[in-house]
Amino acid sequence: MTKKPLILVTNDDGFHAPGIIALTEVAKEFGAVLKIAPDKPQSGMGHAITINSTLRFEQLESGNDFNAYQCTGTPVDCVKIALDVILDEKPDLIVSGINHGSNASINVIYSGTMSAALEGYIEGVPSIGLSLLDHGLEADFTACKHFAREIIELALKQKGKNYCLNVNVPKLNLDLIKGIKYCRQAHAKWQEEFDKRQDPSGKDYYWLTGHFVPFDEHKEDTDLWALQNGYVSVVPVSYDLTNYETLNDLANWKN
Amino acid sequence: MTKKPLILVTNDDGFHAPGIIALTEVAKEFGAVLKIAPDKPQSGMGHAITINSTLRFEQLESGNDFNAYQCTGTPVDCVKIALDVILDEKPDLIVSGINHGSNASINVIYSGTMSAALEGYIEGVPSIGLSLLDHGLEADFTACKHFAREIIELALKQKGKNYCLNVNVPKLNLDLIKGIKYCRQAHAKWQEEFDKRQDPSGKDYYWLTGHFVPFDEHKEDTDLWALQNGYVSVVPVSYDLTNYETLNDLANWKN
Repeated sequence: MTKKPLILVTNDDGFHAPGIIALTEVAKEFGAVLKIAPDKPQSGMGHAITINSTLRFEQLESGNDFNAYQCTGTPVDCVKIALDVILDEKPDLIVSGINHGSNASINVIYSGTMSAALEGYIEGVPSIGLSLLDHGLEADFTACKHFAREIIELALKQKGKNYCLNVNVPKLNLDLIKGIKYCRQAHAKWQEEFDKRQDPSGKDYYWLTGHFVPFDEHKEDTDLWALQNGYVSVVPVSYDLTNYETLNDLANWKN
Repeated sequence: MTKKPLILVTNDDGFHAPGIIALTEVAKEFGAVLKIAPDKPQSGMGHAITINSTLRFEQLESGNDFNAYQCTGTPVDCVKIALDVILDEKPDLIVSGINHGSNASINVIYSGTMSAALEGYIEGVPSIGLSLLDHGLEADFTACKHFAREIIELALKQKGKNYCLNVNVPKLNLDLIKGIKYCRQAHAKWQEEFDKRQDPSGKDYYWLTGHFVPFDEHKEDTDLWALQNGYVSVVPVSYDLTNYETLNDLANWKN
């Protein structure tokens, strides 16, 4: 008898977010599940870790094949605590999400969901971040669960490989989604629009808002193209940030 | 008469850290300087942005060629506020640091210093993050200032290019440093060692600590090799996280 896979489930929207509840349901179909998630929303935390203050975690549910913890830290802290404190063995797979909102293109840089997955990959555990292009708390995760199931099944069969996948699912009914497309990260940025307000004592404060500015979403090999054309986008992510093109160019820099 | 360059200076150790004071001194030799830094230490904040709470900033110094602000946000928030609220024009260069401690190899992922520089690059502003391999508050920035000067001078001459450089300086006297080496990010990870303690009421809490585990620092094209052999390492950094090697492999995945 082969041993059941062990799947670590985490997110950045917090322990009680509908997205992680949906993802946990899918993960349980494949094996034993350890859920660990932040005790509060941690969107936009990127690859932050907690080094200037302390961390706590507590077990909220326990069982043979399902244990669940919430943690005071960031998504990356959650993965570190799971791997280094809670678990005696490496999980077979880490799944992070389902994020409420897109992590396609440049969003991968700011995303706590994807940073948790990337941390797993750095630690040698294949990891998948999943996001649905719908911020609403009432979002329908049906299509997302379908593709989460398909991708987790595929991933568990790739023995001995290490990778991190950024999976984004368009806000469409399942029957309208054309399938999965492997692609690269589209080039884009956020154009900030700081919303300036005054507190009751007359002092200025700001909310960070902005709009998304795509640059090459018309190119068919990008995740933005895939999503706009009815596909689920799958972008493999790297933790080697070296810009090899610039590295070649540096030799030509003259003083 | 050509216009003086405008240089934005930021960091993650906070407004009053010795490293940013040293870097500001160097930047002032080249042109007008806008300094904006977090009002508290923000090490390990990665690419975090503040979206669930508000932001404030205040001007602490003002003059013709030097203005300085502190901000309640993360290093990336600081860059966004400088570019989108404070400045009417794009700066010619962003310099971030001088960080107290290494940002070589995998540290680039967790580093607020480097994330601030990366954010500048995403916004189309050439950016350089600088770090000294010495955590001490009494660290000697002499050699670091020398190389900051050399690299800023070189950078300001590369008109029309966009890039982000991760510069690390070994803890050596200037006369022992062999020069600058352009290199790639070494492969490494942190092995966490959570320090478990009990609060006065008997509840567990943890400090995140760990040790650095290099994998390929013996390879001469890596930043770790450069630093261990007496060179200043310069790694160009990318915000395209696509893992193209894995992308090629995905076509072979079978269900």
